[in-house]
Amino acid sequence: MSNYSIFETEIIVRPSDLDINQHVHYSKYLDYLLLARYDQMKRCYKVSMEDFVAFGYSWVASTVNINYKREVKMQDVVIAKTQVDSYAGAQIKVNFWFVKKETNKVAAEGWAVYTLISLKNGRPTRIPDDLIQKYLI
Amino acid sequence: MSNYSIFETEIIVRPSDLDINQHVHYSKYLDYLLLARYDQMKRCYKVSMEDFVAFGYSWVASTVNINYKREVKMQDVVIAKTQVDSYAGAQIKVNFWFVKKETNKVAAEGWAVYTLISLKNGRPTRIPDDLIQKYLI
Amino acid sequence: MSNYSIFETEIIVRPSDLDINQHVHYSKYLDYLLLARYDQMKRCYKVSMEDFVAFGYSWVASTVNINYKREVKMQDVVIAKTQVDSYAGAQIKVNFWFVKKETNKVAAEGWAVYTLISLKNGRPTRIPDDLIQKYLI
Amino acid sequence: MSNYSIFETEIIVRPSDLDINQHVHYSKYLDYLLLARYDQMKRCYKVSMEDFVAFGYSWVASTVNINYKREVKMQDVVIAKTQVDSYAGAQIKVNFWFVKKETNKVAAEGWAVYTLISLKNGRPTRIPDDLIQKYLI
Repeated sequence: MSNYSIFETEIIVRPSDLDINQHVHYSKYLDYLLLARYDQMKRCYKVSMEDFVAFGYSWVASTVNINYKREVKMQDVVIAKTQVDSYAGAQIKVNFWFVKKETNKVAAEGWAVYTLISLKNGRPTRIPDDLIQKYLI
Repeated sequence: MSNYSIFETEIIVRPSDLDINQHVHYSKYLDYLLLARYDQMKRCYKVSMEDFVAFGYSWVASTVNINYKREVKMQDVVIAKTQVDSYAGAQIKVNFWFVKKETNKVAAEGWAVYTLISLKNGRPTRIPDDLIQKYLI
Repeated sequence: MSNYSIFETEIIVRPSDLDINQHVHYSKYLDYLLLARYDQMKRCYKVSMEDFVAFGYSWVASTVNINYKREVKMQDVVIAKTQVDSYAGAQIKVNFWFVKKETNKVAAEGWAVYTLISLKNGRPTRIPDDLIQKYLI
Repeated sequence: MSNYSIFETEIIVRPSDLDINQHVHYSKYLDYLLLARYDQMKRCYKVSMEDFVAFGYSWVASTVNINYKREVKMQDVVIAKTQVDSYAGAQIKVNFWFVKKETNKVAAEGWAVYTLISLKNGRPTRIPDDLIQKYLI
């Protein structure tokens, strides 16, 4: 954990998220994470993914490390929490936690590294100072 | 349309629902429909999917007819509306509409036929009177 | 059925296609259909989706009607068959069948209507004669 | 890398795997990994997931670490390679690589830890010697 803010997005589990064990399928957490980041970029950091695209940038995932602790079922509401951990050059590291709303217990947690790329050439590009400042809150 | 009640479930679009055209992928509407039915069975009809399973039954989709009218984008909120149209034997026909919350315009609409099956043998089974009455509201 | 050719694409079922009943989830058939059309447009009709995009067009689904007959399990191999049924103006109707390879029994079948749109304005556009002729085989 | 065998499974990319950038969506690699493991457990190790279930066990993912190196597009064929790295108690660590067939370049790579659980109580259970021996090849 870092000292930056932790923001929250509520996730509604869909029946189509469940696997043969009636638990949320392990790849769906990455979809939840992406939804949380989109929501929080816009609502909490005030620089949305669409803003980045308008500036000629996009974010791509470079690394994901996720630990699965407890299964999530259909009736669970999941709170996806994310936090900026650190940044350097073209990359930002984000911590995340998926917490069951009812019990406040962690279903899964981990971190991801995202790389800013230029839409012109698809290559990594240093995160501009004015943009990264918006995320260091 | 029938004379039965139309119930509503709000759908949060996820980035992972989008296709290469940046619109909600056409198969995702069936996932939205399933989510809406689960939600409304429990919240509006007061006989949840879990209740059916506890009674030894399950519902399977037998037919889906869907017409796509307008694309849905990431920033759209979708209202999934469903309505019981009619029933006969083991089957119930349900009308549905996906409406964009902001404009109230239909993104897609159609109907589905669901068949009640016995969990014991997987075969279609006549919908019990006390259960179907719960749905004829 | 029409008199046009029926083409086939083999589908490999993924564990992530399965639902809580250990059967292929009902929305996944639409993903299989799209895969089959992409494959057959390129391999059988010799005008790929990429070709249409290069010409300034794209195809969107306007209607899907699907009947589910038999469940598909993890160990099943599915043959997705599609056939041009008819066309008019900007639209083409395609029949499809999902058949289990081992038993040759139909798991699901139906038809879909696709509309050709112009990428410039997103509006329906009459299918050019030279392109539709490639599909009437 | 360990000294154990590396096995391969060919993955057919589906149009529905693509995201708004026309690349395979980052969560889909976890679906590909699961498909590769199912295939290789049965075909290469000769103890299928169904065998484990018949013995009263199941495997769940405990950790996934994945590094994304190169985007995968619709026309790419992906080879999913996996290798047993090590095991201890109830857990097995598996290395994986997703390689583009045409160029032999790595699209993504990483490792996952799976935990054997008892279907009776859902708790981790030591991997039986006769089963783990089948995987140490």
